[in-house]
Amino acid sequence: MDKQQLPALGIDLGGTKIAAALVQGHTVVGEPWRVPTPQGPDKIIEALLELIEKFKKEHLIMGVGIATAGIVNPETGEVVGSTGNLPGWEGTPLKKIIEAKTALRVHVENDANAAAYGEVCASPHLQNKTCIVTVTLGTGIGVGIIIDGDVYRGAHFAAGEGGHIKISMENRRRCTCELWDCWEAYGSGRGLLATGWEMLEGVTDDQSRLAQRRAHLTNQDILEAAKDGEVLAQRMLEKWHEHVACGLVSLCHLLDPDVFVLTGGMSKFVDYKMLRDMVADRTLPRISKFLEIHPSLLSEAAGLIGAAELVLLEATRGDKPVRA
Amino acid sequence: MDKQQLPALGIDLGGTKIAAALVQGHTVVGEPWRVPTPQGPDKIIEALLELIEKFKKEHLIMGVGIATAGIVNPETGEVVGSTGNLPGWEGTPLKKIIEAKTALRVHVENDANAAAYGEVCASPHLQNKTCIVTVTLGTGIGVGIIIDGDVYRGAHFAAGEGGHIKISMENRRRCTCELWDCWEAYGSGRGLLATGWEMLEGVTDDQSRLAQRRAHLTNQDILEAAKDGEVLAQRMLEKWHEHVACGLVSLCHLLDPDVFVLTGGMSKFVDYKMLRDMVADRTLPRISKFLEIHPSLLSEAAGLIGAAELVLLEATRGDKPVRA
Repeated sequence: MDKQQLPALGIDLGGTKIAAALVQGHTVVGEPWRVPTPQGPDKIIEALLELIEKFKKEHLIMGVGIATAGIVNPETGEVVGSTGNLPGWEGTPLKKIIEAKTALRVHVENDANAAAYGEVCASPHLQNKTCIVTVTLGTGIGVGIIIDGDVYRGAHFAAGEGGHIKISMENRRRCTCELWDCWEAYGSGRGLLATGWEMLEGVTDDQSRLAQRRAHLTNQDILEAAKDGEVLAQRMLEKWHEHVACGLVSLCHLLDPDVFVLTGGMSKFVDYKMLRDMVADRTLPRISKFLEIHPSLLSEAAGLIGAAELVLLEATRGDKPVRA
Repeated sequence: MDKQQLPALGIDLGGTKIAAALVQGHTVVGEPWRVPTPQGPDKIIEALLELIEKFKKEHLIMGVGIATAGIVNPETGEVVGSTGNLPGWEGTPLKKIIEAKTALRVHVENDANAAAYGEVCASPHLQNKTCIVTVTLGTGIGVGIIIDGDVYRGAHFAAGEGGHIKISMENRRRCTCELWDCWEAYGSGRGLLATGWEMLEGVTDDQSRLAQRRAHLTNQDILEAAKDGEVLAQRMLEKWHEHVACGLVSLCHLLDPDVFVLTGGMSKFVDYKMLRDMVADRTLPRISKFLEIHPSLLSEAAGLIGAAELVLLEATRGDKPVRA
């Protein structure tokens, strides 16, 4: 059997759940698995090993690609930068541990980078482009940059932290990273909720059903009320679109990408027509006339597909020996 | 004589002057020339041809590299995007015209990109880096990005327009590009002056010597007053540093560069210690701990050196035939 035709196992390690699936031919094959993310690095590694063993028992696999939150050195496979979603994860030599325990080739990648790579691998229309930027709109914002088909990671592997570009100088909102006015503090799910609270200031319970929910307001409340035609909720959503747009405008002028691909849980609520108009209004005509913003075709699988593709790429190039 | 050892002529075409010099061994050789930029595309081309003829008469040259404001397609050598500084320049097929008239190989490049490439070519400490970003602080702001030793131009050659990233959502300052709150509207020379005017609001003539100059205020006034210890002028300069820093912060999180190199007329007035501290305060520790911000070693020659180096590179690779 040709080793290069074997699938790889892709794993997406998030703050709340771990998703895993076999990836072959740029797509998920077979049943994906999901388990809740346990607390603490030791427990997480245990859960990862269990998942890998499960797949290994049933399939021949080329290797394991792991997409994780945080700043990752993909050469050593170490998590070199912290993340609020996975406390204590910084400093974990993930590749080394998993390779030693499983005798499989392992590639570890920042989740935003992995999602971007997965998106490009799996999308025929994203081939042979100069620059593809994926923006993951979830609890936070991740940015993945693919230049000439390769992941752009920056000088210290931190380019995926594009959610922390600064979109205001007013010091109005503190980000979970403790900096002020990061894009993520406005354009993420957390950002929409903060916008909701702000816009409820001075609104009385009889003026809006959202005001009645003030203490327990969720994005679901805002989205449902907007759908039901409540004007205040629609304004909140519009404001959120404006916040997403303002970050994209900076990315446009600095990177001048071919396409933006939006992914992540919050991307489902994007009105693409509205967003494109808002970005175009704030961008040089020479750039905005080429502007393309599309939803992801892969949705939540992008990260694990990208991680799996990266380990397959390494195996094909043979640039790093499997330790087994 | 080995053709590859011949110098190239580098030309930097700015809104107010045209500078030209021979470039060989990554440095300017012989006397540079400067002429004022005439009005209108025809007159500019005439001036360029005159300059080239002058050098051609006295030297054997490999080709001509031209750095110009505006968005440039370096493959066709056409100015594809407008610039306020050179009215009517958009649409000029500059490479084609100059090659036809001079029978020399010509490379045309956006000035910010050329400056970045010149900086990297001429600086031994900038070799073999992942990402070098040069920021030209002049009347406006230009951004040049070098990734793995090559100019990063974006999908539509507009990556050099990084001065138009958005650093505020308040719609407080209109940029010369007609967009609101571009970095350039705050962090450039024009931005410092606007900050000066803003901070003079409500200040009476007896409170500040700058208030007396209100109608005719220049950056020179602000810089001199700050040097003489006037607190208000020092606050203006500090505020300008903050504005420069806020743009750099976005570049840090998105590109994670090895080094920022500052160039352009306004870069002479940067307090590097203050600027580094301001950027570090607003950047994720994982990125700020590696932060390097340096002044250019080439100053105003970076653009013409870069343009000349780019035509030498093309000649060496032989990837585009000389039309002669």
